[in-house]
Amino acid sequence: MASTAGQVIKCKAAVAWEPKKPVSIEEIEVAPPKAGEVRLKVISNALCHTDIYTLDGHDREGKFPCILGHEAACVVESVGEGVTSVKPGDKVIPCYTPECGDCLFCNSKKTNLCPKIRSTQGQGVMPDGTTRFSKDGKEIFHFMGTSTFSEYTVVAEISCAKIADDAPMDLVCMLGCGIATGFGAVFNTTKLEAGTSAAVWGLGAVGLAVIQAAKKAGASRIFAIDVNEEKFEIAKTLGATDCVNPKKLDKPVQQYLVGETQWGIDYTYDATGNVECMRAALESAHRGWGVSCVIGVAPAGHEISTRPFQLVTGRHWTGTAFGGYKSRSQVPELVKSSMSGELPIAHYVTHRFQGVEKMNEVIDLLHTGKCLRAVVMY
Amino acid sequence: MASTAGQVIKCKAAVAWEPKKPVSIEEIEVAPPKAGEVRLKVISNALCHTDIYTLDGHDREGKFPCILGHEAACVVESVGEGVTSVKPGDKVIPCYTPECGDCLFCNSKKTNLCPKIRSTQGQGVMPDGTTRFSKDGKEIFHFMGTSTFSEYTVVAEISCAKIADDAPMDLVCMLGCGIATGFGAVFNTTKLEAGTSAAVWGLGAVGLAVIQAAKKAGASRIFAIDVNEEKFEIAKTLGATDCVNPKKLDKPVQQYLVGETQWGIDYTYDATGNVECMRAALESAHRGWGVSCVIGVAPAGHEISTRPFQLVTGRHWTGTAFGGYKSRSQVPELVKSSMSGELPIAHYVTHRFQGVEKMNEVIDLLHTGKCLRAVVMY
Repeated sequence: MASTAGQVIKCKAAVAWEPKKPVSIEEIEVAPPKAGEVRLKVISNALCHTDIYTLDGHDREGKFPCILGHEAACVVESVGEGVTSVKPGDKVIPCYTPECGDCLFCNSKKTNLCPKIRSTQGQGVMPDGTTRFSKDGKEIFHFMGTSTFSEYTVVAEISCAKIADDAPMDLVCMLGCGIATGFGAVFNTTKLEAGTSAAVWGLGAVGLAVIQAAKKAGASRIFAIDVNEEKFEIAKTLGATDCVNPKKLDKPVQQYLVGETQWGIDYTYDATGNVECMRAALESAHRGWGVSCVIGVAPAGHEISTRPFQLVTGRHWTGTAFGGYKSRSQVPELVKSSMSGELPIAHYVTHRFQGVEKMNEVIDLLHTGKCLRAVVMY
Repeated sequence: MASTAGQVIKCKAAVAWEPKKPVSIEEIEVAPPKAGEVRLKVISNALCHTDIYTLDGHDREGKFPCILGHEAACVVESVGEGVTSVKPGDKVIPCYTPECGDCLFCNSKKTNLCPKIRSTQGQGVMPDGTTRFSKDGKEIFHFMGTSTFSEYTVVAEISCAKIADDAPMDLVCMLGCGIATGFGAVFNTTKLEAGTSAAVWGLGAVGLAVIQAAKKAGASRIFAIDVNEEKFEIAKTLGATDCVNPKKLDKPVQQYLVGETQWGIDYTYDATGNVECMRAALESAHRGWGVSCVIGVAPAGHEISTRPFQLVTGRHWTGTAFGGYKSRSQVPELVKSSMSGELPIAHYVTHRFQGVEKMNEVIDLLHTGKCLRAVVMY
């Protein structure tokens, strides 16, 4: 490692030159980390729908050309000036939600939304306003502060969650986004209580993680809702007691669910990004105290709606980002829970690939709906 | 009193024969209470906008002819078979949210929405499906389980909150709805914490009660929002630190408020019933943890909307009915708080009248916007 510190690294990356096009495998240059930054060797990457969402041009704020990717496990290659919390050789999960540790938000127990580098992260640059990626002198933007579709990347120190030295890198990458989000929606955002009922819309990895967490938290009845019935088997394995295909009902799913339960469901979750599902989830929540949590990311311009009577009669509408986990404080604990068997995660890996050059193949696979998580080892 | 028990009582009432017409002062017959019911002599009544809302035909489920009224203080005239919790001579506040004490909802600390008699109450009849009001043999429906625009009314025992014998009847009637709702939105539903910021849309009695409660709970900054600037003086007296007229801003009020506070307001409340105000209240709530509470009743068919991103970034959308107070358990305490000076309420009475026959005059007054609460002594 010592040979590369302070040097520009040339490596392979999957570059998204423009939206709605395949990514292009390129040899790029990765500049050394500046003050407060860390350069990472990416070991494993799990593809998440948010990457595809941006690649497909649905994110109005997506900047191109860029290097996508935000679910990864990495090793620190070198650190910039003033970096003290990680050192070369440390295993880390780069987190798109940073934790500076001393802002209004980090000091609150109610949120994980540290805004310290939000503005530059949203613009696809590092906190100093520049990028570390380039190809033949042309700058390439960062994405979500992580950009892990590259063999090497540079992130802010406050985005690095240092994890156990013996963490299984082919699995814990998944705790950088989707699985953590599903777990946290249950444990942190809604604090599901034992003996209650739950329902989740969308049985991708996030929705299944909700089911796993709800079961772990002691939910006594768990509804799994999807139009793709192929997902029902694993949903049941993880704890779903009732699987529902809304297309096969003769009434709106919220009406069906309230009928099944008399007063609705204690905790409901949308993991689809579809605003009609978000509405159904809210309107399926229990009269008097039901909590409905938006997890999915809706297409730009789409809005959620309901009758205000739904809120006046005691339903709560809330949402979660990264499951409410404070990244640097809590992701290491989550990694330990996955390693101890308390919250196993290996069942989310349905496909494995070797090499960043396989990225288009992985993207095509995710589009088929046959995949939960495809892990690519670099 | 003994002479009327078991007898039909003839008395004056303001009858709403049909929507969008003045009420008509009539001599009506009030039948004796049946099992589980209580007949009340109404002492005082405060007019609330919900009465007008129904009279003006906005409530699709409103049944006519009916006797409106739901903010009152009464004395028990007689009780039906099996009634044990109140006796003739007791002072009570009839509550449109009952408390049966042994249902799923009454047994939960999270809600006050006892549904025991919800269905019949919504249909304008007593729990046995019949009415106690008539005029020359023609039946007249009940309203909200209270119908206090009458010198005598009949309500369910579980709707009767027994209050202190020395309660000032010309004031505590207001704790039967609006003022209690505003107080409870702050104390119960959102549990406003000291040192935080608050904002309320709509400076009628409910909105002003929100301000009074927020001040009491220790809010350090309180925004009062209304297009009628005549309300600003009393809002300031009760604790508002900033009064805002959205019509005088050059940007949407949510954008203005977030600008004023950097990240938004910790607790926001809509007391207008206008769905655009509800949206503005949600979108003015603090990133990461802001709670927005819908209090107002929207016209039939109107829906609330927002971008789901507002929830994903940590805002919570909730609502309240009767401020979350469990009626029979908590209204008596609220009456005591008002009497002890802890939560004074006399400043909400802006007009006083004598006699139920004044009801049209009072309704006209409420339409002018000049009135907070007009109390009518019968």
